[in-house]
Amino acid sequence: MSAERHGQNEAATDDMSWAEVTPDAARRLLIAAVQAFAERGYHATTTRDIASRAGMSPAALYIHYRTKEDLLLRISRIGHEKALEILKDAAAEEGTASERLSEAVRSFVRWHAARHLTARVVQYELDSLGEEHRPEIVALRRESDATVREIINDGVKAGEFDVPDVPGTTLAVLSLCIDVARWFNTEGRRTPDEVGALYADLVLRMVGARVS
Amino acid sequence: MSAERHGQNEAATDDMSWAEVTPDAARRLLIAAVQAFAERGYHATTTRDIASRAGMSPAALYIHYRTKEDLLLRISRIGHEKALEILKDAAAEEGTASERLSEAVRSFVRWHAARHLTARVVQYELDSLGEEHRPEIVALRRESDATVREIINDGVKAGEFDVPDVPGTTLAVLSLCIDVARWFNTEGRRTPDEVGALYADLVLRMVGARVS
Repeated sequence: MSAERHGQNEAATDDMSWAEVTPDAARRLLIAAVQAFAERGYHATTTRDIASRAGMSPAALYIHYRTKEDLLLRISRIGHEKALEILKDAAAEEGTASERLSEAVRSFVRWHAARHLTARVVQYELDSLGEEHRPEIVALRRESDATVREIINDGVKAGEFDVPDVPGTTLAVLSLCIDVARWFNTEGRRTPDEVGALYADLVLRMVGARVS
Repeated sequence: MSAERHGQNEAATDDMSWAEVTPDAARRLLIAAVQAFAERGYHATTTRDIASRAGMSPAALYIHYRTKEDLLLRISRIGHEKALEILKDAAAEEGTASERLSEAVRSFVRWHAARHLTARVVQYELDSLGEEHRPEIVALRRESDATVREIINDGVKAGEFDVPDVPGTTLAVLSLCIDVARWFNTEGRRTPDEVGALYADLVLRMVGARVS
């Protein structure tokens, strides 16, 4: 994916998003890795490419990351933790199941739109993680799934939603939101907020929410 | 993406799908390219990798394809043409807008599930095509979009559907179906037919189809 062509310099400009990565040099390398992986794919990127993008030497990279996979794991972990946090925050709010589901979709979509380069790496390079690291990430994904499923179950129990297949609908809702990372900025003429609002409405329809 | 790990040998087993690619050697190379691109990404794959997967010499590859991009373009064109054909067939059927939309989603999803390796290459490597080839593929995508939009517009006109944002809903419907290629076989316990049936129901809800 040509990140450059679309001017998708999200990771470098959005300086808050990798704030937990310290020191500075480690953060710059991580941001360079997101851009390189999104643009050329994990397997086509070398640690030399990443170091050079960050304006550093390959030797300097190894001070912070043992391997290229270390970088991917760090990106994937932070990305999945952020996605989960967004969903949990929405689930924990006061309000009806409709209000909480709407907020979950809205903020999850906004993140996938605004941070689509990171989201693409996180979503499409999952299989590039080695067997020893994948279980940790899969556990985070299951937790995201469970968070949304619980809101939907709450809505069904409260008589707000009509959902014949809760696991399948949960999967579809998350899938719809995740795919925003693929098409956003490529075919879209909408802001992250606009897509979030549209999708919240569509998801309430998917769960057969009673119009209140 | 590790195609091997999931045993996703779709292209090799589904011998009808590339029937239009002749002679045999050209088809074998195309199938090898789909597998290599899906597994390692376009940029990490060499023509030597592809030839070797097909049990051929690099020189033999160049008889059929000038460049690696030639292979990607051929895969992308055939994939997009097939996707468009599926949608057009459903749109042209007799029946109500609900019936036609349901059939479009069902068959489009079945294709993305059963042919998920091909679909991933077609969808995720779009930006790897050079500027001179991308317009042709973008035109096919616009036509797919227009085909679904027309069914939805028909439903609105007939009073069958209630859709405040037809272009946005069209985009979401196609996006939902396309993302099946990402998660299918990775997180799914359902057959392509089962996913197709679930999604047809969810999409009818998204367009506010009157329950008949």
